[in-house]
Amino acid sequence: MKVLITGGGGFLGSKLAHALVDSGQLRGEPIDELVLADLDEPASIDAPFTVRGVAVDITKRAQVDTMLADKPDIIYHLAAVVSGQAEAEFDTGMRVNLFGTLHILEAARALRTCPMIIFASSIAVYGGNIPEPIEDWTELNPQTSYGTQKAASELLLNDYSRKGFLDGRGLRLPTISIRPGKPNKAASSFMSSIFREPLQGEQAVCPVPPDFTHWFLSPRRCIANLIHAADIDSAALGPNRCFALPGRTHTIRDMVEAMRRVAGDDPVNLIRWEPDLDLQKIVMGWKGRFNPARALQLGFLADDSFEDNVRYFLEEDVQPK
Amino acid sequence: MKVLITGGGGFLGSKLAHALVDSGQLRGEPIDELVLADLDEPASIDAPFTVRGVAVDITKRAQVDTMLADKPDIIYHLAAVVSGQAEAEFDTGMRVNLFGTLHILEAARALRTCPMIIFASSIAVYGGNIPEPIEDWTELNPQTSYGTQKAASELLLNDYSRKGFLDGRGLRLPTISIRPGKPNKAASSFMSSIFREPLQGEQAVCPVPPDFTHWFLSPRRCIANLIHAADIDSAALGPNRCFALPGRTHTIRDMVEAMRRVAGDDPVNLIRWEPDLDLQKIVMGWKGRFNPARALQLGFLADDSFEDNVRYFLEEDVQPK
Repeated sequence: MKVLITGGGGFLGSKLAHALVDSGQLRGEPIDELVLADLDEPASIDAPFTVRGVAVDITKRAQVDTMLADKPDIIYHLAAVVSGQAEAEFDTGMRVNLFGTLHILEAARALRTCPMIIFASSIAVYGGNIPEPIEDWTELNPQTSYGTQKAASELLLNDYSRKGFLDGRGLRLPTISIRPGKPNKAASSFMSSIFREPLQGEQAVCPVPPDFTHWFLSPRRCIANLIHAADIDSAALGPNRCFALPGRTHTIRDMVEAMRRVAGDDPVNLIRWEPDLDLQKIVMGWKGRFNPARALQLGFLADDSFEDNVRYFLEEDVQPK
Repeated sequence: MKVLITGGGGFLGSKLAHALVDSGQLRGEPIDELVLADLDEPASIDAPFTVRGVAVDITKRAQVDTMLADKPDIIYHLAAVVSGQAEAEFDTGMRVNLFGTLHILEAARALRTCPMIIFASSIAVYGGNIPEPIEDWTELNPQTSYGTQKAASELLLNDYSRKGFLDGRGLRLPTISIRPGKPNKAASSFMSSIFREPLQGEQAVCPVPPDFTHWFLSPRRCIANLIHAADIDSAALGPNRCFALPGRTHTIRDMVEAMRRVAGDDPVNLIRWEPDLDLQKIVMGWKGRFNPARALQLGFLADDSFEDNVRYFLEEDVQPK
C-alpha cells in the first residue's frame, strides 16, 4: 500500500503521517511507502517502511504528474491556501485550491488505476440564506472564495468518481481546534489561538463576541476520521461522496469555560476581547449547527466534549519552552 | 447598451436575439449593438441597430478576450455542450462548459466594468438523494458531467459577483419543451421530439414510460425570463445569485394528452414507445418537483398549461414543408 499526503508538511498532514507510521497500515493493508508532499519538502519520519518528503507545487501540472508517478493507492489531498489568504489573494486561491485540485484529479485519472482520493473540504462551503441545522442535502452556498473553491472541487471529485476515474471521498472539516503551532491566515485561526496561546502562558486576542457559535472538531478526532475515510467501502458512499464530518456546536463562551475547568483561571485571564469587524464579516457568515447524519451512519465520530479538546492539546501539542 | 449572446446561433440564443431586436431595449435602455457569438458565425438579423455575428471558440481565452473587447454591458452566456455529449465526451464537456465559462468570467473581470452576466444553468444540477420538492436551499448534487460543470460554474459566477468582478445571475432552466429544430445530443432531446415531430406529421420515439415526471418550461416563457433576469436589481439577489426558474411538473402522459386536446389524435398516434435504458439512467436521476419560491418572488414566470406550450410551438416554430 502506497500512501501520498499533499500538504504533508502542514499540521494535519504531519499528524496524519505520524498516525500512519504508528499504525503501519491503512484500510487493513500494510503501508510500504508514505510520501509527504508540500511546497517545502517535509522532513521524513523514522518508520519501518519508506517515508519520503517531496517538494511539489500543485499549481504545476508536470510536478503533480511526477508526484503521482509512483502510483499511490491512496492520496490524501490536504494542500490548500487557507481562507484568509484565498480572500486576500483571489488568483492564488483559484490556482492552488481549484486548479491545483484539478491537476491532482487529472493526474490521478491519467494513472488509470482508480486511486482513492480523500479530500479535505471545509464547512466554509456553507453560507448565506440556508436553514439550520445544516442537513446532508443542504445547498453549498459559500460566501468566501476559499469555500467556493472547495465546493467546486467537491463537485468535480464526485463526478470524477462517478465516471470511475478515481474513488473520491470529500470530508467537510469542522473548524479544527485546538490547532497546534502558530497563528495562520485562516479566518478561523483565532478559534485555536485563544486556547493555544493562553494554555502556554501567552496572551491571545478574541475578535468575536463570546456568543459566537461554531462547529468544532479536535485534531486528534479529525485524524481518526481521515483514517476512517479510507476504510469505507466505495459502494456505501452512494451518489454523493462529500459530506460534513461530525463535530460539536460550541459558543466561544462554552469553550472558554471548558478550558477553565481543565486548566484553571490563569489561561482564561490571558484572553483579550477585541472585536475585528473585517474578520467578523467572514466568520459570521459561517454556519454553526449541523446534523451530520450520513457521516455518523458511516462511522465518523465527533469529540465527547471541548474539555477533551483541551486535554488532547495538553497531551500532544504543548511546545517545550 | 451593448448586448452579447454566447450560443447566439443556438435555438434559445436565436430566439432571444429576435426578441431583443423586436423590443429594441433591455433593462429600460435602448440597445445600440447586439453581438451573436457561436462556434459557427451566426447569421445577422435586420434591426434598427448593429447586429453582428462572430465565430468564437470559448475554449480559447484569446478568442474570448476579443469577443469582449467591445465591453458589452450585458452578456448572456448560453453556449454549452449539451448533456449527452458532455457525458460521452468528458474532456469536451470540461473544456467548453467549465473552462469556457471560466474564460468568460475572467475576461469579464479583466474589463473592470463589472458587466452583467446572465448564465443559463440547468436543473441537471440536481440529483441523487435529496428530498422533493426541491427548495431554494436544496443541495446541488448533479449525477451527470453536464450538471457538474454547470453547478461548478454557478459557484464561480456567484463568487466573482461577490468579489465585485461582475454582476452574475444564474438561471437553472427547466427542460425546455417544445424546442424547435432538430433532435440534439441532450438527453432531454426526446422531451421535445415526441411533440415536435408528430405535430409536423413525423414519427417520434419516446424512450421513457408515460409516468416519467419532469419540470418543463416553454421556449417563449424561457426567453421572457431571460430578459426579465436583466431587469432585476443586483441588490435584490442576495448571497446566492443562482436559482431554479419556475416551470410546471408534468408526466409525459399529461403532456401527450395536452397535445391531443390541442391537435387531435393524429399526432399522438405517431409516438412510438421504445424504452432506452441507457438514456433512462441519465434522465431518471433528474428531479421533477420544485418549489421555485425565490424565482417567483423575483418576478419570473412559469407557463399556465402544457396546452400553451403546444400552441406556442404551432404559432412560432412549425417548419414550412
